[in-house]
This record gives sequence, structure tokens and C-alpha cells, in this order.
Amino acid sequence: MQSKEKEYVVVCGGAVKPAVSEIPKYVQNHKTYYIGVDGGSLKLIKAGYHLDYAVGDFDSVTEEEFQLIKENATHIIKHPAQKDDTDMELALEIVQEEFPDLECFILGGIGEKKGRLDHMLANIWMVYQPRFKQSVGRIKFIEKNHVFQFFFPGEYEISAEKMLPDYLSIITLTAVEQLSIQNAVYNLGTTDIGYPRALISNEFIDKNHPVKLSFKQGLVLVLRVNERK
Amino acid sequence: MQSKEKEYVVVCGGAVKPAVSEIPKYVQNHKTYYIGVDGGSLKLIKAGYHLDYAVGDFDSVTEEEFQLIKENATHIIKHPAQKDDTDMELALEIVQEEFPDLECFILGGIGEKKGRLDHMLANIWMVYQPRFKQSVGRIKFIEKNHVFQFFFPGEYEISAEKMLPDYLSIITLTAVEQLSIQNAVYNLGTTDIGYPRALISNEFIDKNHPVKLSFKQGLVLVLRVNERK
Repeated sequence: MQSKEKEYVVVCGGAVKPAVSEIPKYVQNHKTYYIGVDGGSLKLIKAGYHLDYAVGDFDSVTEEEFQLIKENATHIIKHPAQKDDTDMELALEIVQEEFPDLECFILGGIGEKKGRLDHMLANIWMVYQPRFKQSVGRIKFIEKNHVFQFFFPGEYEISAEKMLPDYLSIITLTAVEQLSIQNAVYNLGTTDIGYPRALISNEFIDKNHPVKLSFKQGLVLVLRVNERK
Repeated sequence: MQSKEKEYVVVCGGAVKPAVSEIPKYVQNHKTYYIGVDGGSLKLIKAGYHLDYAVGDFDSVTEEEFQLIKENATHIIKHPAQKDDTDMELALEIVQEEFPDLECFILGGIGEKKGRLDHMLANIWMVYQPRFKQSVGRIKFIEKNHVFQFFFPGEYEISAEKMLPDYLSIITLTAVEQLSIQNAVYNLGTTDIGYPRALISNEFIDKNHPVKLSFKQGLVLVLRVNERK
């Protein structure tokens, strides 16, 4: 029995150390490409990774640090500081063009426990942009205690995965039609919701019971959440 | 010359100390009502405030602490731990019913630098709920380095206020029609945006130049943001 080796792309933004240390858990034994976003490039390099792309204006790094990035990245995409796109949007453009089929982990995009909340929201808000529609379904934002994943209409089994999280929160990013949550601690019969709605603090029954999620219209964010650890 | 004294209501969730210490800056010399949300009740009481309402399931406080809350709150609204509404939603119901005309500051609703991101999003997501429509325009979420404010269609002057923030970020929560941003460092001519879009890192020209914001349809979140201080 042979299966095609799975490949991943890892994008690293302002990840704090715990998030970079999560990488092996997700990509173990798989071919993996790395994109560093501005200062995130340094964090990946210092953790021993070689970058396929480094993107940003790099005004947050010293000249010396920028040299280090140049030595450890195959491609450097340097942008002016004043631009319409955020650095993370530029990175997602690369994911979309260069790695159109790979599952994508974004580290430090949410900035758990630190940083500017508008940056955090802007990174979530990327998924509303029509230009990223092909990529939204294969992104996961990974933080130490949170995994963000996005779903278009369909039927899914959400597994507890590497973390058996304390909470499973299902947040609709638009109106949704015929949302159903089954096999969870708190279930929801088929329901239309006319506006973005946060259904938080649901739970997995246990590690072997994936939660069944389905809906017919809309965009849904699923968070696996641990209490602060 | 006499003007009617302005009145405020302050809602305190899981506010960390810096947020509680921001209160006097906003409500100085004004009549103010206080609502404590679960453990936030304790933080207000310990900072010397008397509560008009304390609401929550209070499963995060000890029996002794709950006694302290009872002694220092005019009304206690105790709910079961398993309920459909979050404690913050229950508090906003009180704001809506008991203080229908007052400007409302919510502290610790966003949880800058701490806590669960699904709680944070759920608190922002409250503003989408039709039941809170009358209150959304008078809420501000206050954190140490962030102020969140919500706007329905109209023409506004956004002032730098108490903080002259490093950044002014304008995040549409829905599609918007005829959005215009003027008198800022980066202006936007009248533009329709068909989906939620984060226009971040704009800036005030200076303290005496309010930014002019207008739009005809939709819901807009304005963030005043300081870099971490």
C-alpha cells in the first residue's frame, strides 16, 4: 500500500517561540516549505529552518539580521514599507501562486497573548477576500492554545487532532444556512442563522468522536481552544 | 450656561488591572453606573467601585469572594453555568434594558494580551446580534492599548480623544456602501466594499484633526490602537 506523501507550507509571522516549537507536531515526516513573514523569517531561521521565501518590508530587522535572512532563504521578496497589502497578505499570495495545492499552517498570524489586535483581526479578515477564496479552506492558524480553521459549505468531520482541546468553538463569519453540529457535547439541529454568530465553548465527547459539522451556505470558522496553559 | 450632566455605564469583564485603572480617564466628573461580569465584579470592587449590577454564574469566584460581591452590589443576577448566553451577553441585556440611553464602556471584553480568543471574538460578534442593535452604537470596548467603537451608516468625526493613538484602523464588519475616509494620513474616496475588509494602520494627522468617516450601508468597527506600551 502506497500513499502520496503529503506536503505542507508553513508561514511564520510574528510567532512567539511556543508557536514555532509547535511546527514538528504538525509536519512530522512530511515535505514542508517555509515562508517567513518579515521578522518571522528570523524566528524560523533561528529555529533551524531554511526558508523557501522571505517576504516583507523588513524594517523591523537590523541590517545584520537581514543578511542572515538572505543567506538562509531561497527567495527574498522585499516590499516598500508603505503598501496596500499587509505582509501576511503578500505571503498568502505566494501560497496561492506557488503552492496552490498544499495545506498551509500560519504561525503567529493571530498573536495569542501579544501584539496589536487590529493586525490579528486583519489576518482573520483575509479569509473574506475573494482573491484568497482558493486558499481559505486549506489554511490553519496555529497558536500555542488555539487552532483556527475555515470551512465552506459541505459536510465535515472535525477531529480532536493533535490537541484534544478543552473547547470547540464554531463561529460563523457570515449568515449560514442549515448549520448542523452533531456528535459534540452540545448539538445543534439544522438551523439557519441570519448573521455572524459565535457558538463558543462546545466540547468534543472524547478523542475518538469527531464532531460532525455541516451547512449549505456561508463561511464558518472553527476554533480548537485550550485554556491558557 | 448649563449642560445636562452626561451619564455612563461601565461594564467590567475579565479586565486586567490596567484596564480598570483606565476608568477615571473616561468617566471623570460624570455620574456612572457599574456592572460587574462574573470575576470582573471583584476587580471593580477591589478598585473601590460600588456595583449597580453583578451578573454571571460566579463559578470562577470562591464563596468568600461571592459574599464580598453581595455586600457591594445593589443587584445580583446569578445564572446557571450552562446557559445559552455568555455572561457578557447577559450584561449587555442589562445595559439595554436598564440604561437604554447611556454611553457604555466595556472593560476586559477583548482581553488584550490574555485569555481565550474565542471569548474575545464572541464579544465582538455580539454587535451582529439583532437584539443588541439599539446598543451597538453606544458601546466602546476599552483596553489599555485599544479602543473598539462601532458605527452604523452616517457621517462622523472620529477624534483622537483621550489617547492620541499610534494607529487608526477601520474594519468593516459587513459589506459597506460609499465608505469615505477623509482628513487622515491615508484617505479613501467614496468606495463600495462588497465584503468585510480590514483597512488598518491609518493615522490621525494630529490631535486637532478628527478623521471624517462616512458610509451609507453596513456596520463598521473603528479601532484606536497603540503599539504595546
